[in-house]
Amino acid sequence: MEGLTNFYNPAGVAVIGASSKPGKVGNSIVKNMIQSGYRGGIYPVNPKDKEIEGLSAYPAVTDIPGPVDLAVLAVPARLVVDAAVQCGEKGVQNLVVITAGFKETGKEGLELEKELVAACRRYGMRMLGPNCVGLIDTHTPLNASFTKTTPIKGDIAFLSQSGATLIAILDWSRSVGLGFSKMASLGNKGDLSEIEFIAEAAGDPYTRVIACYLEDVADGRRFLDVVRQATRKKPVIILKSGTSQAGARAASSHTGALAGSDLAYDTAFRQCGVIRARSMTELFELAIAFSRCPVPGGNRVAIVTNSGGPGIVATDNVENHHLAMARFTKETIAELRAGLPAEAALYNPVDVLGDGKADRYRFALEKVCADPNVDSVVVLMCPTAVAQPLETTRAVVELAQKYPGKPVLGGYLGGESMAEGEQLMSESGLACFTFPEPAIAAISGLVRYGAFRDAPVAENDLDYPDVDQKAVKAVFYDVLRDNRLVLLGSEAAAVAKAYGIPSAPVTLATTAVEAVGQAEMMGYPVVLKVASPKILHKTDVGGVKVGLNAAADVRRGFTEIMENVNRLLPDAPVYGIEVQKMMPRGTELIIGMTRDLQFGPMIACGLGGIYVNLLKDVSFRLAHGLTRREIEAMLAETKAYTLLRGYRGEKPADLPALVEAVGRTARLVLDFPEINEIDINPVFAYNQGLSALDIKITISVS
Amino acid sequence: MEGLTNFYNPAGVAVIGASSKPGKVGNSIVKNMIQSGYRGGIYPVNPKDKEIEGLSAYPAVTDIPGPVDLAVLAVPARLVVDAAVQCGEKGVQNLVVITAGFKETGKEGLELEKELVAACRRYGMRMLGPNCVGLIDTHTPLNASFTKTTPIKGDIAFLSQSGATLIAILDWSRSVGLGFSKMASLGNKGDLSEIEFIAEAAGDPYTRVIACYLEDVADGRRFLDVVRQATRKKPVIILKSGTSQAGARAASSHTGALAGSDLAYDTAFRQCGVIRARSMTELFELAIAFSRCPVPGGNRVAIVTNSGGPGIVATDNVENHHLAMARFTKETIAELRAGLPAEAALYNPVDVLGDGKADRYRFALEKVCADPNVDSVVVLMCPTAVAQPLETTRAVVELAQKYPGKPVLGGYLGGESMAEGEQLMSESGLACFTFPEPAIAAISGLVRYGAFRDAPVAENDLDYPDVDQKAVKAVFYDVLRDNRLVLLGSEAAAVAKAYGIPSAPVTLATTAVEAVGQAEMMGYPVVLKVASPKILHKTDVGGVKVGLNAAADVRRGFTEIMENVNRLLPDAPVYGIEVQKMMPRGTELIIGMTRDLQFGPMIACGLGGIYVNLLKDVSFRLAHGLTRREIEAMLAETKAYTLLRGYRGEKPADLPALVEAVGRTARLVLDFPEINEIDINPVFAYNQGLSALDIKITISVS
Repeated sequence: MEGLTNFYNPAGVAVIGASSKPGKVGNSIVKNMIQSGYRGGIYPVNPKDKEIEGLSAYPAVTDIPGPVDLAVLAVPARLVVDAAVQCGEKGVQNLVVITAGFKETGKEGLELEKELVAACRRYGMRMLGPNCVGLIDTHTPLNASFTKTTPIKGDIAFLSQSGATLIAILDWSRSVGLGFSKMASLGNKGDLSEIEFIAEAAGDPYTRVIACYLEDVADGRRFLDVVRQATRKKPVIILKSGTSQAGARAASSHTGALAGSDLAYDTAFRQCGVIRARSMTELFELAIAFSRCPVPGGNRVAIVTNSGGPGIVATDNVENHHLAMARFTKETIAELRAGLPAEAALYNPVDVLGDGKADRYRFALEKVCADPNVDSVVVLMCPTAVAQPLETTRAVVELAQKYPGKPVLGGYLGGESMAEGEQLMSESGLACFTFPEPAIAAISGLVRYGAFRDAPVAENDLDYPDVDQKAVKAVFYDVLRDNRLVLLGSEAAAVAKAYGIPSAPVTLATTAVEAVGQAEMMGYPVVLKVASPKILHKTDVGGVKVGLNAAADVRRGFTEIMENVNRLLPDAPVYGIEVQKMMPRGTELIIGMTRDLQFGPMIACGLGGIYVNLLKDVSFRLAHGLTRREIEAMLAETKAYTLLRGYRGEKPADLPALVEAVGRTARLVLDFPEINEIDINPVFAYNQGLSALDIKITISVS
Repeated sequence: MEGLTNFYNPAGVAVIGASSKPGKVGNSIVKNMIQSGYRGGIYPVNPKDKEIEGLSAYPAVTDIPGPVDLAVLAVPARLVVDAAVQCGEKGVQNLVVITAGFKETGKEGLELEKELVAACRRYGMRMLGPNCVGLIDTHTPLNASFTKTTPIKGDIAFLSQSGATLIAILDWSRSVGLGFSKMASLGNKGDLSEIEFIAEAAGDPYTRVIACYLEDVADGRRFLDVVRQATRKKPVIILKSGTSQAGARAASSHTGALAGSDLAYDTAFRQCGVIRARSMTELFELAIAFSRCPVPGGNRVAIVTNSGGPGIVATDNVENHHLAMARFTKETIAELRAGLPAEAALYNPVDVLGDGKADRYRFALEKVCADPNVDSVVVLMCPTAVAQPLETTRAVVELAQKYPGKPVLGGYLGGESMAEGEQLMSESGLACFTFPEPAIAAISGLVRYGAFRDAPVAENDLDYPDVDQKAVKAVFYDVLRDNRLVLLGSEAAAVAKAYGIPSAPVTLATTAVEAVGQAEMMGYPVVLKVASPKILHKTDVGGVKVGLNAAADVRRGFTEIMENVNRLLPDAPVYGIEVQKMMPRGTELIIGMTRDLQFGPMIACGLGGIYVNLLKDVSFRLAHGLTRREIEAMLAETKAYTLLRGYRGEKPADLPALVEAVGRTARLVLDFPEINEIDINPVFAYNQGLSALDIKITISVS
């Protein structure tokens, strides 16, 4: 069930529920199909009409003489399943179900949608929708939707989980001259989802960039696998809404989808190379830039301007986006000095001054574009008295063509005075914005995408042949048999040991003699802790003794703890007393795991200790597809990393050992889906090695 | 020298350097003055022409028969000072100096500018510029600039430090239908600056909101005083560029101004109620919203939409901006349920569905606007097949008029389909954006402004009658006499003591006997530290002894430290040995002060200890105008605050004592401008009281 076949270029399209009444959805679809210029057969299906919009109409899809690859269904919801079955009988490959009244309306609708999907499966049909606006391809051409207008031909593919948003964007795009290769309204995603459509667009020669509005992702694991491939081919930009808790509630009342946490989405997008847009404006600013600019070779930006103010604003944004201001070569500076007026600013930003005309822009741009230290160029222009937007743009276009590897973007500040210039930029396939900020934000997106695309393909290198799966299984078996889901400290330590995660030795003693023996084995000092799944605050009931240095202390400690617990919590089940070796203090870290509904296990690592929730210095990665290099990148994102590298003269921590411990934790949670949560806090990191101190593992009944 | 008189409404305007040649600046100004509809006398001054653009021209300003309040100078730079002097002789009140070639060109230009300013001072004239585009008032009307077009009449005052940006914004504003009450190009700010123009606009009945593009602030201290007053009257929105280090360099090469740190600007803006825009787009989105919306009574936002997607996006943004989604009353819900289709979403956002027409919007809006739990309303609309943008907008306008205290903003997604509706919104004085995000961002700005404006006026309540200024002066005198700028620990402790900042006792002992006596006085345990301005790493040379519990220990410690230091650093001057009482550990905080070039002393407080630079959990306030309530707000911004209030069962810290200590530190640095830096780290905060442990004070030669 991979990929889409003939969805956008079908041989024959049936419109089931076609109507001759203007204003009806079934009428709009037929008209759109005709007006789109679609070259195959268009077959309105309606039992009452002989002819619709000048085309022969058929009582049923099975009555159509020619081949029908695609059927667009706009009949009432209760008729959809039957219509789908008939499509199956006819040999239709693909359905676009416009009709609403399915999952989005509640339980009954959900049942109806299941029936519909089952019918599709039975006949091997794929389906877009239900509850969608349809799909459009400007290159086939094809407009199997009920939109009021058709998009301008272009090279942006737009996928939208919200039909009304697709309609709005289409309307808006025409007013700003933005073109699309294809548009698909994903609706309820009963069968096909963004995953198949992203994969399709990635292989589409007419599409240069894929822009999506999503409220959730259909299948997190598959999304990761498929989109990771797609982004190697072309940029995928996603505006994912429902980021806030309130927004997610609104999203879920809207689509009935169970959304993963926004943090997981953020992590997933980053790990598979998706550029995440933060607003609708940014989604399309990025789409424009990606569709019109090459991916630059690096992050060094040059700015050429005729006014200081916008140059400063652009420079601020270069820094805010973690880009670099290009440092020109000596030769470039010398040439600029020779050719520009004495008052001109020669260093980046280059200011050709308010009396600069097109020739001065051309001169400066020639030097700047040719400079090997420049990766991308932003041309800022204010409508000064002598500014020549059109002539200047001619120079910009020529230079952009001469240096096809360097993005050259415009920031033309103004209205009517700049219109001609902006239009020529757009017609020449260059990105031009009204203000400096979006131009710099666009370069930032291009640079981030380039870094992802050009990084060597990550290999799955989290394989540790020495892990002992059987030992872990045995522990979990015992825990479940004991009707528990939370492991005791000694059990968790055993799991860690089985997976080679270095941890302080912990054993369970049921008698004082046993405790002394264990303490002698592991060496002093030791800690004693009561082992009981019912006692959460062990210290409060006198259930902990620290810093015990000799056998006598252990013996006395054991007895005292037992007495304390028996006195204060006589009914609590006590499994014994845990003996843990006290480890020397190191840098306190945390390694953790939570399982996201959509994307599976998510690993966390960062600053540990009791203030972990306060300081929130933790970074995240999804365990699926995680690599050692990614773990290094993950650690480098934390403030703890500065500590680990040796802060204020302290010795650096053993980073390779930490990477290994995180990797082994990821391996553990990938191998054991029944692990619900892990919380190792603190992990003491030393100059040599590390040690997990307190390991909490919760499992679920698998 | 306060305020502006007759700048925008002068009796008689001379244009010195007027020209009859089209394209010349001196010609554009005369034309603009004529075309503006200015009702007073316009007097071109040019020794060669008898008539310019149909007006009598005069050889010199002194030859003009009528009164001249304002002279616009566009003569070459070398002639400007003479022209200014003649204006002074004529009795001109105000100058607008368009001419460039002053401070911005370097040292000579700076001298010329000083001469010009001196000439103005001599005659009591005020000056805008030099090196500016001029100024415009659409209500007087008056256009004393060389802009190509005139702005649409409106109620936004725009002040711009960049002339080209002003020109660009003017050009752009006409294309988007945005109106201005006045525009001023500040140029080099040789005399007048944003300060006077903000104060003027605050009192201008035609101005509702003040928008500024600034690269620096002329006088930080006066800016604070004046703008704090202005923002009580009307909103001031500022885009301050040069925020990045690279941007500040670009700004400083541009204007030659010495910019304060961006953090200080951020703090200053917040403390005086300025809404800071983060981009040029946001500057005007906020300006539009402020000019068209009332300030809401609270932060509870209601959303009415005809499509789920944009509703979710808006909801996300409500949360991101720390606004609240309004919770409707039971009555509202019941009414909505009764009047809307079963599938409609009744809870916020209210979804009137894709088939919702104007009547359904009107119904929902009536209920939502009337709800007492709603402070502001966003109307989102997608161009669905049946959407009625114009009719819906009529309902929106009526309801906005019916509830004048509640902002009602539009987010009309689309292009041509929405144009009529958007236009009616604009004509009706309502704010309408193309996407949901700017509408929510605008409400966030309105809410923040309202909170500032409506807060009781802060009183200067940092007066501590018990402070001992003489004691501090004596310490500084001794330090300077000793040719030092860094205080010894004992000196710093004495300063703290004089200002009532609780600190661990520190004394300086020159003999072992003295040390023992001091230790006995303060009580054990104590720490000994070598006191020498030349020894920075005291521990490394054996210059520190901690945890001394008895006289014998102190005696031995004293001798050992002296021996160690004499052996390892025989040439270091040693003032003696500091005896400090060891204090019990508390929550580690930092209190600090750096002096900003523009805004003076800036107080910092937050999490202390050795990781202070790593964790960066510190918040800032300018000491000028600081109040106890502001200090409380400052503390509440830090993560440390969570600790101080009692984290994970710990006892809360003595917050009033901390507020007092911060306030006394602020008092100290306000009283002693010679204090350059203070760094008190750690401060131990206890359940009762606190104690400053390590106090570093650096002074400058005053």
